[in-house]
Amino acid sequence: MAPFCAAVDWGTTNFRLWLLDAGGGVLAERSSGEGMRACLSPDGFGPSRFEPVLEAHLQALGTEPDLPVIVAGMAGARGAWREAAYRDAPASLEGLYADAVKVDGPDRDVRILPGVCQRAKGREDVMRGEETQLAGAWAESRMSGLFCLPGTHSKWALVEEGLLVDFTTYMTGELFAVIGQHSILRDMVAAGEGDSASPAFREAVGEMLEGAGLTGKLFSIRAASLLAGDGAPDAKARLSGLLVGAEIAAARKDLQERAEVMLIAGGTQAQAYETALAIAGIGCRTLDGQDLVRRGLYSAASALWPERRAA
Amino acid sequence: MAPFCAAVDWGTTNFRLWLLDAGGGVLAERSSGEGMRACLSPDGFGPSRFEPVLEAHLQALGTEPDLPVIVAGMAGARGAWREAAYRDAPASLEGLYADAVKVDGPDRDVRILPGVCQRAKGREDVMRGEETQLAGAWAESRMSGLFCLPGTHSKWALVEEGLLVDFTTYMTGELFAVIGQHSILRDMVAAGEGDSASPAFREAVGEMLEGAGLTGKLFSIRAASLLAGDGAPDAKARLSGLLVGAEIAAARKDLQERAEVMLIAGGTQAQAYETALAIAGIGCRTLDGQDLVRRGLYSAASALWPERRAA
Repeated sequence: MAPFCAAVDWGTTNFRLWLLDAGGGVLAERSSGEGMRACLSPDGFGPSRFEPVLEAHLQALGTEPDLPVIVAGMAGARGAWREAAYRDAPASLEGLYADAVKVDGPDRDVRILPGVCQRAKGREDVMRGEETQLAGAWAESRMSGLFCLPGTHSKWALVEEGLLVDFTTYMTGELFAVIGQHSILRDMVAAGEGDSASPAFREAVGEMLEGAGLTGKLFSIRAASLLAGDGAPDAKARLSGLLVGAEIAAARKDLQERAEVMLIAGGTQAQAYETALAIAGIGCRTLDGQDLVRRGLYSAASALWPERRAA
Repeated sequence: MAPFCAAVDWGTTNFRLWLLDAGGGVLAERSSGEGMRACLSPDGFGPSRFEPVLEAHLQALGTEPDLPVIVAGMAGARGAWREAAYRDAPASLEGLYADAVKVDGPDRDVRILPGVCQRAKGREDVMRGEETQLAGAWAESRMSGLFCLPGTHSKWALVEEGLLVDFTTYMTGELFAVIGQHSILRDMVAAGEGDSASPAFREAVGEMLEGAGLTGKLFSIRAASLLAGDGAPDAKARLSGLLVGAEIAAARKDLQERAEVMLIAGGTQAQAYETALAIAGIGCRTLDGQDLVRRGLYSAASALWPERRAA
C-alpha cells in the first residue's frame, strides 16, 4: 500500500517519523537523536539541518519525492526551521491543521502544526507538541477532561469537547535536573536511585500534598543527610517526590469534580506519577504519548490532504 | 584598654574578627574572604588553613599570644577546623557556650560555638552561625518572637524566652542562583536587574501569597518572554519575587498571633524582604546581623571567661 503521508514528531532532543497509510496505519518508522537542538545552525546564522535530516530519513525509507509531510513540535519554534505561530487557548484541537505553516523551499509539501499559548498576565504559558498529543486523544476517542503530561516541562491541560481550554506548565523535570546537578544537594542526589516505589518518594509526595512549602522541604534533604548520614538513594527519591508532589498539589485544583486524570507517560515516569496520583486520591488512565501524537498528526494530515487520502 | 577577647564570625565565604573590650565594645576589627571554603584543605587530606588565617589576623592587630578567641559559624562544621556538634532544638541561647569545643593544638584558648539542629523526620534542619545572632538578640534586648534571616539558606526561627524552639530553612538564595544560572530562564535572568521596587517583584510575591504553585509560576517567566519579548529586568525581579514569596507564604504559618517578625538583614536584601513582608501584611523590625553575631559571641565569651572579663 502506498503511503498517504509522513508524520514527524520533532522534539527538542528526539526525532520520530512514521509512514502512514490512508487509514492511519503505520507502514514504517524511524527515530533518532536529531531533535531541534541537533538541527539548529551551530552559530545561529548558517543553514539549519532540518531539511537534510528529514530528507535523509525519507530517502532511507525509499519514499516518493512528492510524499507530503506533517510535522509537530519544536521544528516550528521561533528560530528553528519555520515558525508556526502559537494559537491562543482556548483552541480547537481538530482545527490545529488550519494554522499549519507550509515550509518554503522544499519541493515536497511540508507543513508544521502550530503550538498553543496562553497570554493572561501571570499565567503566560506555551506548548509545542503536546497539543498534537491532545488532538490525537480527541480524534481517537473523544476524550475530555484533565490531562497530565509529565516531563522536563510538565503540562496539565484541560480539554472540553475538543477544545484545549486551559493549561499550566510545571518545571518539574528541569528543576529535578538543575537542583540535582548544581545545588548543595548534588552529591546526595548523584549517588541515589530515585525509585518511586521507595518510602522516601511516597513520604515526600504526601508532605507536599499536605501543603508544605517546597523550598523549605528541599533543605531538609541536606539536613537529614548531615544529621543521619541518610542513605543517598533516599535523597534522590525524596527530591523527586517533593517536585512531583508540588506539581500535583498545585494542579489538582483544576480537577474540580473529576475523578481521574488522563496521564500521558510511559516507563518509570508513568510509575512515579501513578504512585503520586494514587497518594493524592486521584485516579488515572495512562496513555501512550507516541501513539497519541501519531494519531494527532494523522488527523491533521487527513484534514489537509483529503483528496490524497481518498486516492 | 587591653582586649578581653577576639570574636570571630567564620562563615562559608567570609571571615570577620573583632577585638572586644570587657564591656563588649569594639577595639578593632578585620574582615576578609577567608571563609570556610577558602580554609579547607584543597584535597581534603592536607592541613587546613584555619589556624594560620586566624593567627595572621590576630598578629596584624598586635594582640598577645594568650588572647582567647570565641568562634561561631562554619569553622565548627564537620570536616572544617574542629567539629562543634549540633545542639538539639529547643536550645537555650544563653547556654550555647556550654557546648563550645576547645580547638586542640593552638597554645591560645580557641573555642567554637555549636550549631543547632532539629531531628524530627521530614523536618530535619540545621543552622550554624545564625544561632549566635539569635543569642545576640536575646542578650541585647530579650527579644522573643519569630526571626527571619534571609540568605542562601534563609532561616525562620522561633525564639521564646531565650529558647530557640523551632526553625525552618528555605533554599531561597540558592534556588535563585541555581535557576538563574543553569535553567532555561538563565538568559532572561542574567540580563535583568531584579529590583525589589519593580512591579514584577511585587506581583510575583502577591501570586505566591495567594497560594500559587512555585514550579508552575517559574515557567510563566519563560513563557512571558517568548510571547511578549518581556523585558529582561522583569524576569530577574519576577524570579526573586516568586522565591521570596514562596518562603513567606510557607513561613507565615509560624507567625500565629504575632504582628511582626524580626528581620535580620541589610542592604538590598533587607529592602526586598521588607517589601514582601509588607505585601503579606506582616510588620517587621530590621536588625543588623553583624551587630547581633558580635553581641552573641561576646555573651558566650563572658560566660566562658568570667575571671578574664573581671580582670
